[in-house]
Amino acid sequence: MVKKTENKEKVTLIVFSQDFDKVIASFIIANGAAAMGSEVTMFFTFWGINVLRNKNVNGKGKNVVEKMFGLMMPKGVSKLKLSRLNMGGFGTRMMKKVMTKKNVASLDSLVESAQEIGIKLVICQMSMDLMGIKKDEIIDGVEYGGVATYIGDATQSKVNLFI
Amino acid sequence: MVKKTENKEKVTLIVFSQDFDKVIASFIIANGAAAMGSEVTMFFTFWGINVLRNKNVNGKGKNVVEKMFGLMMPKGVSKLKLSRLNMGGFGTRMMKKVMTKKNVASLDSLVESAQEIGIKLVICQMSMDLMGIKKDEIIDGVEYGGVATYIGDATQSKVNLFI
Amino acid sequence: MVKKTENKEKVTLIVFSQDFDKVIASFIIANGAAAMGSEVTMFFTFWGINVLRNKNVNGKGKNVVEKMFGLMMPKGVSKLKLSRLNMGGFGTRMMKKVMTKKNVASLDSLVESAQEIGIKLVICQMSMDLMGIKKDEIIDGVEYGGVATYIGDATQSKVNLFI
Repeated sequence: MVKKTENKEKVTLIVFSQDFDKVIASFIIANGAAAMGSEVTMFFTFWGINVLRNKNVNGKGKNVVEKMFGLMMPKGVSKLKLSRLNMGGFGTRMMKKVMTKKNVASLDSLVESAQEIGIKLVICQMSMDLMGIKKDEIIDGVEYGGVATYIGDATQSKVNLFI
Repeated sequence: MVKKTENKEKVTLIVFSQDFDKVIASFIIANGAAAMGSEVTMFFTFWGINVLRNKNVNGKGKNVVEKMFGLMMPKGVSKLKLSRLNMGGFGTRMMKKVMTKKNVASLDSLVESAQEIGIKLVICQMSMDLMGIKKDEIIDGVEYGGVATYIGDATQSKVNLFI
Repeated sequence: MVKKTENKEKVTLIVFSQDFDKVIASFIIANGAAAMGSEVTMFFTFWGINVLRNKNVNGKGKNVVEKMFGLMMPKGVSKLKLSRLNMGGFGTRMMKKVMTKKNVASLDSLVESAQEIGIKLVICQMSMDLMGIKKDEIIDGVEYGGVATYIGDATQSKVNLFI
């Protein structure tokens, strides 16, 4: 039996950023909203598409510029950096350590929980095209969409954020 | 005959940023929403006011600080830079090339489309005042407003974003 | 007699940033919305918690990493910097001067007004925990909450922004 979702509040987040801190905030809000009964969509665009890259895969059939962008952008959640106080990686490492110590879920497990709890992860195809990221580089369980997908979700949502 | 707009969804975007990537995202969302029937307002504030500067005009009657800020801030859409991987302009040039190749509208034509499709562009007068940007420096077809204008639009909108 | 607030529009802002410009924008929107009759909540998270630090208090019982983060992050509104054109503090000082000259309220007085007009300031406890900021370092009149507090407010709000 399919659960009816018509009466659920909808929450739609645009994840534009690839900063560790903003991405953590996105997933904490998304998972929190889903846990409280909302129907949540996260729409990954521009730098945000790097969040969903599979760290073990190299895209095939790339031209020089695409290869260059691909190398310079982070390959998935484990490579994201704090937007401030990164200090060559030291600040981000410290933050991750403190998160473990304080029992805050890691970004890896936040993404996993998001998928388990039924949060819809949509990735912007135009951004992938512009940055030369191929579908085989993206983690499983992600939908592909464009601005029309986003507007469709956003205009039905109670909470919309651009992160 | 004036078309009734009472039943249209309203979408209101604050464009705070002057980053090429965020501004592109703003206009793609705005034009997409308008194309799908929403009534869209873009409210340009702080660094975002530079998006609406006319590249061919120098403001008159500026004091030293205003001249300095004016020179250091981008003069319209063609001068915006990527927030990441700008690499002294190289990254932004590459991105523009890829956009042309992939048939993604340029920022210039996105602004033009926005005006043609009836998106309301509002610029924050207080920000202009703080940054010493004069009305004769702003492109045509823009409305002038303040926080009350924004709140009035936002509280009637289905989608609100801060970009 | 307690004024009923059921029919008021609700506005909920996440203040994630510690940039002078974004924080000013947050408080101008918040105070504007409250002045126009909305019920406003500002939820301070991640770097944004620094906005609410008391500049005269040093937190006690911190470990080395907490002390280090505490020292490197701004201690309250008077220490915030422009996200662009800060130029070693010169740009921020210029901006503050122009604000005084143009009769734009300072950040100090915007925070004060926000508290007087009844804007609810909520600070994210998890962020405090992660960054080692203690309750005795936070200004008076602030509530403590988490993601559930935020989602509760956001899903009842007409305007939601992430700043």
